[in-house]
Amino acid sequence: MKKIPTLKGFADWLPEQAVIREKTVAILKDTFSFFGFQPLETPSLEYASVLTGKYGNEADKLIYLFEDRGKRQVGLRYDLTLPTSRVLALYQNKITFPFKRYQIQNVFRAEKPQRGRLREFTQCDFDIFGTSSPLADGEILLVIWNSLKNLRFKNFLILINSRKILEKILEEAQISPQKRKSVLQTIDKLDKQPKQAVEKELSKKGLNLKQIKKIFSLLEKTSPDEEIKEIFSFLKKNKIPRQYWQFSSSLVRGLDYYTGPIFEVKIVKPKIGSICGGGRYDQLISLLGGPEIPATGASFGLERIFETIQEENLWPEWTPLRTKVLVTIFSPQYKDVSISWTSALRKQGISCELYLDEKKKLSKQIKYADKKKIPWVIIIGPDEEKEKKALLKEMASGKQEKLTLKEIVQKINGGKIK
Amino acid sequence: MKKIPTLKGFADWLPEQAVIREKTVAILKDTFSFFGFQPLETPSLEYASVLTGKYGNEADKLIYLFEDRGKRQVGLRYDLTLPTSRVLALYQNKITFPFKRYQIQNVFRAEKPQRGRLREFTQCDFDIFGTSSPLADGEILLVIWNSLKNLRFKNFLILINSRKILEKILEEAQISPQKRKSVLQTIDKLDKQPKQAVEKELSKKGLNLKQIKKIFSLLEKTSPDEEIKEIFSFLKKNKIPRQYWQFSSSLVRGLDYYTGPIFEVKIVKPKIGSICGGGRYDQLISLLGGPEIPATGASFGLERIFETIQEENLWPEWTPLRTKVLVTIFSPQYKDVSISWTSALRKQGISCELYLDEKKKLSKQIKYADKKKIPWVIIIGPDEEKEKKALLKEMASGKQEKLTLKEIVQKINGGKIK
Repeated sequence: MKKIPTLKGFADWLPEQAVIREKTVAILKDTFSFFGFQPLETPSLEYASVLTGKYGNEADKLIYLFEDRGKRQVGLRYDLTLPTSRVLALYQNKITFPFKRYQIQNVFRAEKPQRGRLREFTQCDFDIFGTSSPLADGEILLVIWNSLKNLRFKNFLILINSRKILEKILEEAQISPQKRKSVLQTIDKLDKQPKQAVEKELSKKGLNLKQIKKIFSLLEKTSPDEEIKEIFSFLKKNKIPRQYWQFSSSLVRGLDYYTGPIFEVKIVKPKIGSICGGGRYDQLISLLGGPEIPATGASFGLERIFETIQEENLWPEWTPLRTKVLVTIFSPQYKDVSISWTSALRKQGISCELYLDEKKKLSKQIKYADKKKIPWVIIIGPDEEKEKKALLKEMASGKQEKLTLKEIVQKINGGKIK
Repeated sequence: MKKIPTLKGFADWLPEQAVIREKTVAILKDTFSFFGFQPLETPSLEYASVLTGKYGNEADKLIYLFEDRGKRQVGLRYDLTLPTSRVLALYQNKITFPFKRYQIQNVFRAEKPQRGRLREFTQCDFDIFGTSSPLADGEILLVIWNSLKNLRFKNFLILINSRKILEKILEEAQISPQKRKSVLQTIDKLDKQPKQAVEKELSKKGLNLKQIKKIFSLLEKTSPDEEIKEIFSFLKKNKIPRQYWQFSSSLVRGLDYYTGPIFEVKIVKPKIGSICGGGRYDQLISLLGGPEIPATGASFGLERIFETIQEENLWPEWTPLRTKVLVTIFSPQYKDVSISWTSALRKQGISCELYLDEKKKLSKQIKYADKKKIPWVIIIGPDEEKEKKALLKEMASGKQEKLTLKEIVQKINGGKIK
């Protein structure tokens, strides 16, 4: 048997991990839908012309492109905004605006694999299309906060800024419009690098000392503008505790396309960095091939959330297997009675498994329960069968008792017999 | 704005469809996990060497293959059994056997697009690895039946046969081992073609009249063997009603790799054909590069299930939007009071939306509720604000009443105020 590996930068999610991923997605979907967002699914493959030439040369290099068997130039989904803008263009008349959609799908980027960065990963986007009101930006922040609370996150901070505020700072510091994009990219590093390093880079980019000093002083003293104030008022009216969000004048968000409020969620502990980012992008949808439509939204990275849940042990009582009881088979001739017990327990709503190999020794069967962390084991041998009872063994304590079906259901479920 | 289409053979699932797909997947996962199955996720991309040369030339032609940016020969997932056998090989020591896993992911096949057949579609596989006991085959059938009941399917029939029984028939009819595969492929058509056409094809394949007559008479009079009888006994002990399953000696299942019991689910009405198929494949996993391990399982086709739910209107009360109430904004100066009402209703567990554009006319806002089939609308104008009440409008009847928060919660939820 020659073992062929998983492709570099791609992941197999074994059950213990996959269940946490599934539960996370279920919680996010539940939160999104509670706030009136609806799902959208688009194909993994798109025409190359949909994908390329949209986010610049650097991004284009990361897209998986190829020719399909019908000689079409195609590519794998790079993000979820591009396909959504295609959908908005194609089905504009079928959609009611403001359109609140979520999309949770995998995207593909041919990046150099790094720790915690995969070439196929899952984005959880939720956006509102068709309104330029700050109410929509506020609603996105509300969904972010509620999602994280529902996921049981505690140590997080939502940073809020606006591209308009940053633009104004650069204008006041007399940075020429051509240089602004590049200067913003450097300011964005203030979060990770010492101030001196950032100053040095700005100087390299041709800014004089006066301009650099001006930028720093403005970043320090700048306060929220009217729009951001309105969003803050929205958060207060929604009683989002003050410790979870703050104004951050140096927040830039890497992508060029933001036009208004921008947000980012930092995990304070452990140092995982950003697990969610977003903002308003009123011109992007038409640039991507969609209609002219204002838009705001955010995206969670599933892998980062997963990492935090694991490292912070946020779901301590969570078990990756739902099975409460393993019904063993005492010996092949006791197979039928074990089938009946399994069936009866399942009818009572108890998730249980029958050990699916009557030829295996009882000790091997009990080992299965142990390895899979199934809390209870049932054994029905000759005595038990005669008495219409079963031996219930608690795996943690090793204690065992001969009980009736009714007693077992009550013991396991604390529930009543149906 | 140039509209770029979706790739041929690929689908956009808009919210009304995507919610049904999501609910279907949620029900399947819930059923699978109740029976002790655990999720597995594998990458969309694999080394081409994992994918090709496994299912024959015809299958190989359908695989999306290409060279990635690192000059690796790669391909898109063709099914879920191949990646699972790779996982079984790589992580054999981490897995507890019998291993019960489900995998719900998209697969890619470059087929000629036909009605109801997509090039990217979702398979919902559930399999048991590591036991050759008929108990495992019975458990798979149990999960099939429970899944369909949980999805509210009524008119379905599980056909059951065994490759061993078919082999015996061919042996008795003195069909040479080399011809058997081809003869089985023809017998498989009995379901869709008249008997004469099948006879003709068998004759073309070099069978004489005696052999053909023998095959048909054996197909008619053959009854379940010991193994199939044991599976039937398992189903009876689990009280699966007799109208949902039957022995079908002419059931072949297209794929060569089955070695024992085989199953297929037919939807009796509407004529959608097979929505689920499976069986035992004890040699396949090692052929695919995995360990030598017996296996049995089945797979639901998400798109076929979706079609049946739609055509049969199986979920009549199902609404694609969870939102119960739209809170409108009477005019920009009443924005704050509407924010507070939305927040208060959400705190009561009521899924509600604030209309996210304070500048739009009330009539436009109400039209949004109408189009999205939101059953209730709330309006807070000057009078209502003064009285600390809101106007609750029932969209279906057009009736409206001025009510307090408490009264509204009781009206909508039938629930009590928190």
